[in-house]
Amino acid sequence: MLIREFAGADWPRVWPIVEEVVVAGDTFVYDPGLTAESARGLWVEAPPGLTVVAVDGDRIVGTAKMGPNRPGPGAHVSTASFMVAADARGRGVGRALAEYALDWAGRQGYAAMQFNAVVESNTWAVELYRRLGFSVVGTVPEAFALPGGKRVGLHVMHRFL
Amino acid sequence: MLIREFAGADWPRVWPIVEEVVVAGDTFVYDPGLTAESARGLWVEAPPGLTVVAVDGDRIVGTAKMGPNRPGPGAHVSTASFMVAADARGRGVGRALAEYALDWAGRQGYAAMQFNAVVESNTWAVELYRRLGFSVVGTVPEAFALPGGKRVGLHVMHRFL
Repeated sequence: MLIREFAGADWPRVWPIVEEVVVAGDTFVYDPGLTAESARGLWVEAPPGLTVVAVDGDRIVGTAKMGPNRPGPGAHVSTASFMVAADARGRGVGRALAEYALDWAGRQGYAAMQFNAVVESNTWAVELYRRLGFSVVGTVPEAFALPGGKRVGLHVMHRFL
Repeated sequence: MLIREFAGADWPRVWPIVEEVVVAGDTFVYDPGLTAESARGLWVEAPPGLTVVAVDGDRIVGTAKMGPNRPGPGAHVSTASFMVAADARGRGVGRALAEYALDWAGRQGYAAMQFNAVVESNTWAVELYRRLGFSVVGTVPEAFALPGGKRVGLHVMHRFL
C-alpha cells in the first residue's frame, strides 16, 4: 500500500469513500446531504493543507486530509481526518494514513495535532489515536447523534509533535 | 441597551469592533489578516444562524453570532461568539449578548451550547461563561499564541440548555 498526494483525477474514486462514510452517519459530523461537489470543497485541501490517498494496487482504499486546525493564533496546531473504504478496513489503512499525517505535520513544523470531534463510540478510531500517542483532552457530552438517535460524546484528542 | 438582529447597513459600524478584537489578537482564533469583506462572511450568519448587535443610544457597542456548532449529527448543539467595543467594556454588554444567545438557542430547540476555543488567559470571558452555567470540558494545551508569542490553552466550554 502506497500513500500519495491527491490529484484531481482521483476524485471519482475518493468521493464514494467519503459518501459511504457520511451516509453511514456514525463517525463524522458532516451534513448527510453532502453532494459530490460540496464534499470535494470540504475534503480536498488547498495549501498549506494537504489531501492524500492510500492506494492498494490500482484501487484507492482510503484518504486523509491534514492542515492547520485554526487560523491565526491557532495555526501552529495541526488537525487531520481519515476515511477508509468499508471493505478495506482492518488492514492497517487507517493507521498508515494517521502515521503519514503525523509525520507530515512534524515535518511542516506544527507543534501538535488535535482532533476536534472523535465520536466516542468509534472505538476503533479512539484506540488507534491512543496508540499513536493522543490523549483525550475532554469529551463534550451527547454532542453527536447516532443514526438511531442516541446521543454520544465527542472527544477532543491531542498530542504534541 | 438594546439587542437586535443585525441588518446589512450595520456592517460599517460592526466591522471596526471585529477589526479591533482581531488585531488585538488575544481572544479570537481568527486570521489577523482578515479584511472587512472576509470578516463579513465569517461574522454575519445566514439562517439557521443569527447575528445581532448591541445598541446603546445610536452606537453599536457589541455584536454576537450564534447557530449550530457543527452540521449533520452535531447540529443539535449550538455555539456563539461575542465581541464588545474596547471602550464599552465593563458595562454588561458581553453578559447581555451571552444571555441573549442562550435564550435564543433554547427557543430554537438546541440541546446545549458549546464554545470551541476560549483563550484561557481571557479570564473575563471564562468567568462570565462559568457564571452563566458553562463548565470547562477540557483545555487544549498551548493551542493559542498570544501576541508576544507565549502559548496558552484553549478551553472547550459547554452547558446543556
